[in-house]
Amino acid sequence: MNIPQSSFPRIVVIGGGFAGLTLAKNLANKEAQIVLLDKHNYHTFQPLLYQVSTGGLEPDSIAYPLRKILKAHKHSYFRLADVSYIDTDEKIIHSDIGELTYDYLVIATGSTTNFFGNKNMEENSMVMKTIPQALNLRSLLLENFEDALLTPDLNERDALMNFVIVGGGPTGVELAGALAEIKNSVLPEDYPDLDIRRMQINLIQSGDQLLDAMSDQASEKAEKFLKKMGVSIYKNVRVNDYDGKHVTTNSDLSFESVTLIWTAGVKGASIKGIDAADVLTKSSRIKVDQYNQVLGYPRVFAIGDIAAMTTEDFPHGHPMMAQPAIQQGKHLSKNIIRLLKGKEMKPFDYFDKGSMATVGRNKAVVDLHRIRFQGVFAWFVWMFIHLWSLIGFRNRLVVFVNWVYNYIKFDTEVRLIIRPYKRNSHKKHTEKEAEIAIDK
Amino acid sequence: MNIPQSSFPRIVVIGGGFAGLTLAKNLANKEAQIVLLDKHNYHTFQPLLYQVSTGGLEPDSIAYPLRKILKAHKHSYFRLADVSYIDTDEKIIHSDIGELTYDYLVIATGSTTNFFGNKNMEENSMVMKTIPQALNLRSLLLENFEDALLTPDLNERDALMNFVIVGGGPTGVELAGALAEIKNSVLPEDYPDLDIRRMQINLIQSGDQLLDAMSDQASEKAEKFLKKMGVSIYKNVRVNDYDGKHVTTNSDLSFESVTLIWTAGVKGASIKGIDAADVLTKSSRIKVDQYNQVLGYPRVFAIGDIAAMTTEDFPHGHPMMAQPAIQQGKHLSKNIIRLLKGKEMKPFDYFDKGSMATVGRNKAVVDLHRIRFQGVFAWFVWMFIHLWSLIGFRNRLVVFVNWVYNYIKFDTEVRLIIRPYKRNSHKKHTEKEAEIAIDK
Repeated sequence: MNIPQSSFPRIVVIGGGFAGLTLAKNLANKEAQIVLLDKHNYHTFQPLLYQVSTGGLEPDSIAYPLRKILKAHKHSYFRLADVSYIDTDEKIIHSDIGELTYDYLVIATGSTTNFFGNKNMEENSMVMKTIPQALNLRSLLLENFEDALLTPDLNERDALMNFVIVGGGPTGVELAGALAEIKNSVLPEDYPDLDIRRMQINLIQSGDQLLDAMSDQASEKAEKFLKKMGVSIYKNVRVNDYDGKHVTTNSDLSFESVTLIWTAGVKGASIKGIDAADVLTKSSRIKVDQYNQVLGYPRVFAIGDIAAMTTEDFPHGHPMMAQPAIQQGKHLSKNIIRLLKGKEMKPFDYFDKGSMATVGRNKAVVDLHRIRFQGVFAWFVWMFIHLWSLIGFRNRLVVFVNWVYNYIKFDTEVRLIIRPYKRNSHKKHTEKEAEIAIDK
Repeated sequence: MNIPQSSFPRIVVIGGGFAGLTLAKNLANKEAQIVLLDKHNYHTFQPLLYQVSTGGLEPDSIAYPLRKILKAHKHSYFRLADVSYIDTDEKIIHSDIGELTYDYLVIATGSTTNFFGNKNMEENSMVMKTIPQALNLRSLLLENFEDALLTPDLNERDALMNFVIVGGGPTGVELAGALAEIKNSVLPEDYPDLDIRRMQINLIQSGDQLLDAMSDQASEKAEKFLKKMGVSIYKNVRVNDYDGKHVTTNSDLSFESVTLIWTAGVKGASIKGIDAADVLTKSSRIKVDQYNQVLGYPRVFAIGDIAAMTTEDFPHGHPMMAQPAIQQGKHLSKNIIRLLKGKEMKPFDYFDKGSMATVGRNKAVVDLHRIRFQGVFAWFVWMFIHLWSLIGFRNRLVVFVNWVYNYIKFDTEVRLIIRPYKRNSHKKHTEKEAEIAIDK
């Protein structure tokens, strides 16, 4: 990978998400060489991906170039690399751009969608974990309405306007809310020839409440908000199968829909070489001790979604969310500095700052340490915290401009099909042809 | 296409660029049914594409949804359609979404890149006429530097950092200037391990001056600006061939480069059914009379880049730029209203407002009707006019925020590889696989 040798120990971090990036930033300018590897050249602010999918934000305003973050750091390197295998005996990382040795390795690869082995679901449903995926959903959503205009078949038209969201966690709730908002404001004006009232937004939750990681108060209020906005909520229902058209569940309930969005499960994005059965949990997370050390692998750490640190409060590991990732990244950076100085490491202690979700305009739910509130004020708190958490002044300003504009105008302007999704996925041809077809 | 029948005559407009959009807007709420067809669901503000390619602007801020423009118009319809053939005898348009009859047809399909029959050039060079193309160039540019870091072969590294721009018109000049700016500010900080001084920007012009449609004063000043910024300019040179690596010219001059950007020619984006040899000019533009009527085809008009109206001042038709397109769109809308009222149409008269190009920070050249100026003031005029010409308040605001930010920080932040270009084009696999590979 053409990284120069240094007299400092080399710490390789795989993944520039919340965990890996926080760690790399906190180890900047210390007596260590930092090499950050990621498949993308940017950090993605995942909590706002749903706004990209629904045309409320441009993708570029929730992404931030990783090189820009590292550029002021001495002894820090970034490489755009897809890691294929880790040889922990020789301490070598294998990737699509070559090999690299490490003194310490930090795995921060995050999580990926979990289809629990359902191949049909994996093949036919949309997911929303990366920016290209969010853009695919944006394209599909808009292409559906273009197609709905054209078909004389009323059942097909309904299926094109029927959106099934599986999973009642924050992503599912926020996406359902955003779809309901464009149903009520943007779409009837954009498609005056369609009866947009027939558009359905179905939210399917396997458990008996939405946002099950939050308080009862929050989940009840979120449900009330969504219902008022026209979202159909089905609880205690599991989706069994989906062939791209027909959704079947474990009950009598079934749907005809060309768009199923799967937000019902995540698993650790595990990595070859550190994936022995005894190292991984059932959801492919890497088992770590209270110092984020991977059990049985000296000099290897894991942080963020990929790490499962079991504690009394969290018998299955911390929630796979931004807060634990950021806190583990910060904590491990301190522990590594201690380690390099020959001092003893300190155990990680998670401080639950609370959680929040937004449903729509003036509608959010917030659980703080002891305080819980919902509605307008919660919505402003949600916006403020998300703006503040974005990386980069430009991104904050552009997101702020969009939000103010959308709020005043009841409008989301970036409803653009830049790269068509549907037209491509139906055609079987080489990618080069696809590029040309898209770019004409 | 599922357009309702109306008692008004149906005017079909193909293309939502400057010409087609201006026409459609000016025919809004008149006694005519307007159907606007476009391959994209948005209007592209082409003059700023080069800033998307060089990471200065997000693509979404120079695109505007066509449906949003038409939504307040009575009797106006938009369809996302790729027109394949026009049957002028039966007055039927054939497209990928079906057929449509017309009473009047307005062709505003614009222009496409002209490689003058050179297949190698077409296959191996980058172009910048659409947003996906501009994004491909942005990805390639950044991927080149990532690759340059990795290769131990110094010649290959130089070839990765050698950019050859063919064509010294506004697009070539503006792109060369933008590349020179990121060479001087962003890239040395992003890639401290590379010797960015070895990056070359070569601008090749077949004629004996740059910006040959502008005044001598403007072209000389633009050349001086570019040279000062480190761009190598070759005049009176024609590129003969390019195999993706080696650029040969009609002189001794040759280049080793993996990135050749072709801005040296445009031709009319002609359409089957109206492409008889006697209707088209040598550069595939459709010959029209002074009312923008296509010669020999009653009830068919052409406006903008695709239309070649020969006048005393413009023996080969008006320049293929925004101004003639906008003026023809506006003028034809008035003529169509006259026509519908049984009045006589008026001939088109082009008013040359002048032209301008920007080279970089504080450096632009402006030719107005009689006044010519260059430098800082010209640059502010250029910015003001481009901001003002953008469609939509949100777009103007976001572009303004980006420009102020870039100006203060000497930085362009959207250097993101959202959809890799290079990695894909090397692999031969089906598009579905490509989607998955990209979206992982």
